[in-house]
Amino acid sequence: MIGTDQNNSINLKRLTARYKEMIKIGKTENGGISRLALSEDDRRARLLLIRWMQEIGLDVRIDDVGNIYGTLISESSDASPVMTGSHLDSVPRGGKFDGTLGVLAALEAVESLIESRRPLERPIEIVSFSNEEGARFTPQMLGSGVITGKFSKEYVYGRRDSKGKIYKEELNHIGFLGEEENRPKDVHCFLELHIEQGPVLEKENLSIGIVEGIAGFCWLEIKIKGQADHSGATPMSMRKDSLVVAANIIQRLSRWAGSKEDGTVATVGRIWTYPDSVNVIPGETIFTLDIRNRDHLRLSDHIKEVKEMISQTAMEANVISSIEEIGANEPVHFSPGLVEMLSDICAHKTLSYRKLVSGAGHDAMYMNRVTDTAMIFVPSVCGKSHCEEEYTSWEDIENGTNVLFEALKRLTTIKK
Amino acid sequence: MIGTDQNNSINLKRLTARYKEMIKIGKTENGGISRLALSEDDRRARLLLIRWMQEIGLDVRIDDVGNIYGTLISESSDASPVMTGSHLDSVPRGGKFDGTLGVLAALEAVESLIESRRPLERPIEIVSFSNEEGARFTPQMLGSGVITGKFSKEYVYGRRDSKGKIYKEELNHIGFLGEEENRPKDVHCFLELHIEQGPVLEKENLSIGIVEGIAGFCWLEIKIKGQADHSGATPMSMRKDSLVVAANIIQRLSRWAGSKEDGTVATVGRIWTYPDSVNVIPGETIFTLDIRNRDHLRLSDHIKEVKEMISQTAMEANVISSIEEIGANEPVHFSPGLVEMLSDICAHKTLSYRKLVSGAGHDAMYMNRVTDTAMIFVPSVCGKSHCEEEYTSWEDIENGTNVLFEALKRLTTIKK
Repeated sequence: MIGTDQNNSINLKRLTARYKEMIKIGKTENGGISRLALSEDDRRARLLLIRWMQEIGLDVRIDDVGNIYGTLISESSDASPVMTGSHLDSVPRGGKFDGTLGVLAALEAVESLIESRRPLERPIEIVSFSNEEGARFTPQMLGSGVITGKFSKEYVYGRRDSKGKIYKEELNHIGFLGEEENRPKDVHCFLELHIEQGPVLEKENLSIGIVEGIAGFCWLEIKIKGQADHSGATPMSMRKDSLVVAANIIQRLSRWAGSKEDGTVATVGRIWTYPDSVNVIPGETIFTLDIRNRDHLRLSDHIKEVKEMISQTAMEANVISSIEEIGANEPVHFSPGLVEMLSDICAHKTLSYRKLVSGAGHDAMYMNRVTDTAMIFVPSVCGKSHCEEEYTSWEDIENGTNVLFEALKRLTTIKK
Repeated sequence: MIGTDQNNSINLKRLTARYKEMIKIGKTENGGISRLALSEDDRRARLLLIRWMQEIGLDVRIDDVGNIYGTLISESSDASPVMTGSHLDSVPRGGKFDGTLGVLAALEAVESLIESRRPLERPIEIVSFSNEEGARFTPQMLGSGVITGKFSKEYVYGRRDSKGKIYKEELNHIGFLGEEENRPKDVHCFLELHIEQGPVLEKENLSIGIVEGIAGFCWLEIKIKGQADHSGATPMSMRKDSLVVAANIIQRLSRWAGSKEDGTVATVGRIWTYPDSVNVIPGETIFTLDIRNRDHLRLSDHIKEVKEMISQTAMEANVISSIEEIGANEPVHFSPGLVEMLSDICAHKTLSYRKLVSGAGHDAMYMNRVTDTAMIFVPSVCGKSHCEEEYTSWEDIENGTNVLFEALKRLTTIKK
C-alpha cells in the first residue's frame, strides 16, 4: 500500500522533506513550535508555503484577513473549487503537527494529483487560514470566521493581542494584508486533515478518524460564596468553606459526565480561592466548567441539569452560588455525503477507521456554514496536543494524506 | 457590675476614648485598619502609645527589634515584673481589634490599678510587640520570637518585605531601633488579652474565653500530577484529571477532620491548576493543607494518617502525589495556675466563660517559652477577624479588661 504506485499514493519522502523544512520555523528547544499568528515566524512560514505553492504551479491569492489560497486550475472547467487546508499558526510551545500537517498534506495531495496527470473536472484550492489558534488574537479561527460570515471584517481588524497590538496593523506589518475580492466566492466542498488531539484512535488502534461533526460547548464560570474565617480558630462544624462545596461539585460533575453514555465531557480547568491564604478558610471559590456534547438539544438539557445540580449542592451546604456563561458554540454536523465517501475510501484502502465527533474546534467548523465539509483525523500519540510532545507517526501521516489524495481525486471528478 | 466602683472595674469611657483615637491611624475606607509593621502608620501608633504610657507615669524602653515596654515600677519591690500586652500592627485591610485591643486594655488596666492606689508588690510591664502579624515581614511574631530565643537577632534583622525592604533598615527608618539591653530580663508571668478570632464564644453566648494553650499546626503543600489533555477531545474514561483527584482529597479531608472529636481542624486555603486553562484538563493541581490540634502526639498521628490517605487516594486514581511540609508549630500548653486564677476571677465576677484552645498563634505562644503564660479571649462577632468587619462589643471589651485588671491585682500581690 505504501508508496508503490505513483497514481494511488502520495510521496511520503517529499512530504517529509517539506515538513522538516517547515518545522524549523518557530522551533522550540524541546522540539515543539511557537509560531504565533502574524508573528515574524508566521510570516516566514507563510512565505515558504507560497514558494512551494508557486513551485507546483498554483495560483496564489491573499485575502483581506490574511488567508492564503493556492489554486490548481482545471483546464476544462470553471466549476466551484474543492477546498482543503488548515492553518500554520500555533499556540506558544505548541506541537509540530497541529494545523501545519493539514496544510502540507494538502500540498502533497495536490502535487501527487498533478503528477497523476488525471483530468481535473474542478479546480482545487489549498487554504491556510489566519489565526486559527486564538493564542495571540482571541477568539479562535478569525480567518475562517470572516470568510464564512461568523465575524465581521471590522471585528477581526480590531482584535488586540496581550500587548495591545492590533490585528490589522500586525497583518499589514508582515505583508499579508490582501484584498477582500480574493476571498473564495463559491466553494464546492471543504476537507481538512488534522491530528485528533485526543486519545481515541490510538487507544482503539485505528489509522483514520472520519469526523462527523464538532461537539458544541458551553463554558460556565461558577462562583461559590461561603465565609472566610481563621483556619485555626473555626471549628469544622461552624464553617462555610466554599472550597469544600466546590470540591463536592467538581466530584459530582466528573461522575455525572462519566455516567452519560452520549459522549458528554465536563472539565473544570481553572479554580481559585479568595483570600487565597494557607490559614484562611476560602470565603469564595471560583471555577470554570467546560461541558461538551455533539447534540444541540442534549447539550442544553445537560447544561440545565448541571446548573440545577450546582445550585442544589450549594443550597444544601448553606452557601451562595452563581453561574455565568462565558462562552458557547453550537454543535456542528458535517456533510453525511462526504463522511460516507471518506468511509468508502478507507474501506477500499483497507485502512482501519471509525467515525467520530471532534471535541475540539477547527476551521472546518466555520467552513461548514457555507459548504459541505468533513475532516480526516490521524492519531495523536497519547492524545497529546498543544504541547511540545505532540506526535503523529509518519505511517499515520502517510495514510491520512493518501485518504485526502483519493478524496480530492473523487471530488474533482464530476459525476455524469 | 459595670463601672460603679473605681477600685473594682476599669474606666470604659477612657478606654473607648483612647481606642477611638488609636484606630484613626491606618483607618481604611470600610472602617478597618491597614497598619503594616514598621510602616509610617505603625510609627504613628507607636508614638501615640508611648505618649499615653508616659502620661500615666510608665517608664518606656525600646529594644533592639522595636518591641516597646512601659513599666509601672513597684516602690517596694524589685521583683520580676508581671507582663501584659499584645501588638499594634495589622494585616492589610484588617480589623480594629486584633492586637490593638490587648495593648489598650493593658494600658487601661494599669491606669485603673494606679488609680486604685493599691500597694504594688511587683512591677508591671506593658508590652507592644513588633511585627506580630507577619503580613509585611514573614514569619509572624518576630518581636516576641527574638526575646524568647525562637529567632536570632540577625535572622529578624535580615527579613525582607515583598518590595525587598529590610527589617533592620525599616525599623531604623521609623526611629524604633532600640537597645538589646532593653529586652526584659526576667518576667514573672505574661498575660495577653485578645479577640477570639473564631465563633465559639459568640455561638455559646459566653463573655470570656480562658486560653489553655495554642493548637499546634502543620502546613503541607500537596501536588497531584495527572495528565493535561484537551477538554473536548478526551473522553471521561481516558482522563487523568488531577483536579478531580484533588477534589476527592479535599472532600475526604473535610469529612475526616469533622469526624474527629478532638478539636482537629483541617483547611485547604489555596489551590491552583496547571496549565490553568478553561479547555485543558488540569495536568497538575497543587493545594495547601493547614491541620491543627492541641496535642503534640495526636497532631503527628493525624499528619501521618492524612498523608497516607492522600497517597492512597492518588494511587487508586492512578495519578502521582507528593507532599511537602511548608510550615509547622508545636502545640503550646499555658500555665495551669494562671488558667485557674482566671477561671476563679470570672467565677467571682459571675462572668460566663469557658476554657478553650486557641487555633491561632499569638505572641503569648512564644512568651510561654520563658515564663508562665495565659490569655484572655473576648468574643468576635461572627468569628470574623483579619478583615474590616472584625467586631467585638464594648460590653465584652469591658468584661475582658476587668478580668485583666483583676488578674494584675492578684499577680502583683505576692503571696505570703
